[in-house]
Parts: sequence; structure tokens; C-alpha cells
Amino acid sequence: MTIGIRGMGLIGGSFEKAFRREGHDVLNLKNASKDEIRKCSLVIVCLPPLMVEPWIKKHALDFADGTVVTDAAGVKGVVCDALRDTAARSAWTYVGGHPMAGKERSGYANADADLFRGASMIFTPYAFTSEVTVEWLKSIFSEIGFARFVVTDPVRHDEMIAYTSQLAHVVSSAYVRDGLSKSHLGFSAGSYQDMTRVATVDPDIWTDLFLSNSSVLDSVLSRFIDRLSGYRDAIRSGDAATLRTLLAEGRAAKDSAQ
Amino acid sequence: MTIGIRGMGLIGGSFEKAFRREGHDVLNLKNASKDEIRKCSLVIVCLPPLMVEPWIKKHALDFADGTVVTDAAGVKGVVCDALRDTAARSAWTYVGGHPMAGKERSGYANADADLFRGASMIFTPYAFTSEVTVEWLKSIFSEIGFARFVVTDPVRHDEMIAYTSQLAHVVSSAYVRDGLSKSHLGFSAGSYQDMTRVATVDPDIWTDLFLSNSSVLDSVLSRFIDRLSGYRDAIRSGDAATLRTLLAEGRAAKDSAQ
Repeated sequence: MTIGIRGMGLIGGSFEKAFRREGHDVLNLKNASKDEIRKCSLVIVCLPPLMVEPWIKKHALDFADGTVVTDAAGVKGVVCDALRDTAARSAWTYVGGHPMAGKERSGYANADADLFRGASMIFTPYAFTSEVTVEWLKSIFSEIGFARFVVTDPVRHDEMIAYTSQLAHVVSSAYVRDGLSKSHLGFSAGSYQDMTRVATVDPDIWTDLFLSNSSVLDSVLSRFIDRLSGYRDAIRSGDAATLRTLLAEGRAAKDSAQ
Repeated sequence: MTIGIRGMGLIGGSFEKAFRREGHDVLNLKNASKDEIRKCSLVIVCLPPLMVEPWIKKHALDFADGTVVTDAAGVKGVVCDALRDTAARSAWTYVGGHPMAGKERSGYANADADLFRGASMIFTPYAFTSEVTVEWLKSIFSEIGFARFVVTDPVRHDEMIAYTSQLAHVVSSAYVRDGLSKSHLGFSAGSYQDMTRVATVDPDIWTDLFLSNSSVLDSVLSRFIDRLSGYRDAIRSGDAATLRTLLAEGRAAKDSAQ
């Protein structure tokens, strides 16, 4: 099968290496001709989130009938909403996609054929998308190691991702921006490394991701700040009983959601 | 050498296994006789933080002259202050200790002879503690894999630990206590796992650790909440420039403090 990829950063590059290893022809669609685009049975757009819709619309007449177009943007509402009308009237199919995989460092230099091994892949089809197409996507993506598929709608996706991913990136960045961070060596262990690991992500891409999902992320982040304030108040007033309860609730929540 | 350990949880049990593997005689000092305690050249107290001082004071007359007593409590100010007078007038030596290693689950069942491999060990001697004793401790602890030693005072220890460890445990607990956590599967990847990993720690022990260092932890946590509020305000108002700056500062801070 011929698979076209637009955007050869960490994610696009990892798709390229992984699908090549499985024996597929992979085309880099940067500056590709219409003939090359027309050859692709599957196109994966791995551009920064706000560039996905413009690129697909620009090439709306270039895809062959039956081509399946997906993407890797970490927000789905803005992308899927903007593409709905174009997708509805085209003979190719767009299905929103989001591979739940990444690294602390972006760029093709960090691309890795094993990046998706064991990861989850989320698809956000429209109500009018055929189920056969989604099943076909699952089978193709399972070839390169995805171990779990979630099919949901963009609203649910963006709510969950605000919590599981965007909040984690805000926390990591805020955590490391303390004057004490430069002296952590010798005083830190795994928990500090875990907290600060993803503070190195690309500021431009993550600004776009955050602002493309701002109202949901605002809610999730505000709830988190409120919970933190609960611990802070208990610590400040020496309220051991409350602190014990909060920590026990955290342990129970983690245990019930491994 | 005979090494006595009081407290056979995760940390005490890991010291037991690690020192045994190196050929030392390790005695569990729970219910040990005075003769047994007197045999120990080194005693490591791995009890919960607030039980360290009472146990050492109770046995102040049982240690042999020249015995070195250390501990593993995650706070050093309260412990070292309370033991200063006893230590100053005894023929044995107390040196505060804190191994920067742990696991998500406490208890002897999780003890591991390799727990300390590559970890940092912090010692907080008094001004009157001989340097020879500290060097001797370093050499003994390096046998079981510690790769870095920090010698500092209890105030500096407690400030750094509030940031590198205690704050991480507050964050992890608060992070997972969201209604969305029970649905994370399929929507989460490494960053979520990292954020929530240590939410399972023992609520009693960590309540004592937090409240034994409450004013410093209050400051560190308040600064963190203030920083988070900065991201929240920028997200709410759609201020891309500020968000990009905050994320770039986070990346720079992480890069300069690997």
C-alpha cells in the first residue's frame, strides 16, 4: 500500500519508519505532485494542529476517490469541525486521529519506528463516516504496534486529553520553573524526574494545542488548582486528618484507575 | 561488619537485602537485646519520621561507643534538632541520613537489594560531627550502589526536598483526584502515568512528612499554584505570547538542570 505523510517531525517520521518496516511504500507529501498524492490509499497529516485543516482543504481535489485521510493533531474539535463540510461532500474520507505517543523531544531526529508500540490510537469519525473505514484504519495502524483503539467524538476526546495530556504538560512546565530546580541534583529521584520530564516540549505547538482547547483546559486546570489549594490549606493549618483523607483518596483513585 | 536496622519496611528491608548481599551481618533490631544492639557498628533507623527520635533516645545507653547511628527519614530538621543534645553528649555518633530512593508501594514485600543503585544519599551531620565519620558512611553506603553523596544541613535539605519530593507527591495525589481519572485508559500515555505514579504512597507516613516540614512546603506549593495560575490566566484570555514564553522558560529551566 502507498501511504502519504505530510509533516516529518517526531510523529510523522515515526509513522514513516514504522510503516516502511512493515513493507509499505511511504511518500513524503511535502512538495508532492498531484500524481503522487493520488497514489496514496492512506494519507496521515502530521503537521502542527492549526495547519492540518488548511493543508487538507488545499488538496481536497488531489486525493483519489476512496483515499482515507487522517491526522495526528492533539486536539480534535477545531480540526474535525473545520473539515466536516469538505469531508461530507468529498469522495475521499477524513477521520480525525490522535496517536497517544510522544517523546520529550520533537523533530525527525527523534523519530522511532517503535514509538507506537503498545500505545493507544484515538479516532474521531463523523456520524456519517462508514464503520468499515474505521475498522480498516484500526487494522492498518495495528500493524505498527498500536495496542488499543478508542473511537469517540471530538468533544469527548478534547475533554479527556485536556486532563490526561495537556494538564500534564502545564504541570511539568510550571513545576520546573522554580528557582530551586537548578540545584535539584543529589536531592531528587524518580518523582522529580517524572514531574519535569515533558517540560521540554515545543512551546509553539503546545501553545496552539492549549489555545485550541482553551475552555476545557481552563476548567481542568482550575479544578486541579482548587484541589492543590486543599492540600495547601491542610498543610498550612496542620490539619493531619484532612491531609490523610486527601492522600487516601488519591491512592484509591490511582488504584481504581490503573 | 554488623549492621542493625530498625524498621523493616520498603527502605529498611532494601538496606537489609543490599548489605547482606555485600556480606555484612544484618540484624533486625525490632525487639533486639542490648547485647545485639551493642554488636552493631552501624545502626540505620528506618522507622516513620516521627518515630526515629524516640527510638534512638530510648536506646541512647545501648549503643556501643563509636557506633554510628543514621536514619532514613525524609525530613531532617525535626529529627536532627531533637537529637542534637543527646548526640552531642554521647560516645556514639548520630548523622542524619536520607536515601533518595523509593517505590510507589511501601512495605517489606517491595524491598529490593537494587533499590539504591545509582541513587543519591544525603547526610546532614552536625557542626560537631567528625568528617571522618561522614567519609566512613559514604564508603559503606557506596558498597550498595549509591552513586552520589550530598552533605548538607537540615534546613537546606528540607527546603530542597519540599520541592523535589514532597511537592511531587502532593501534585501526583491532587492530579489523580479528578472525576476523569477513572476513564483515562485509551486516552493516556507516558505523561499521565508519570504524573500519577506516586499517588499510591502511604497516607500516614506522607502526612507526617508534610506536616514536619509544613512552612517550607507551604511556600513551595504556594509558588507552584501561583505559577499554574499564570498558565491558567494566559489560557483563559487566549494570550499566546505569554503562554509561549512560559513554555519556553520551562524548557530552558529543564534543559539547564538535567
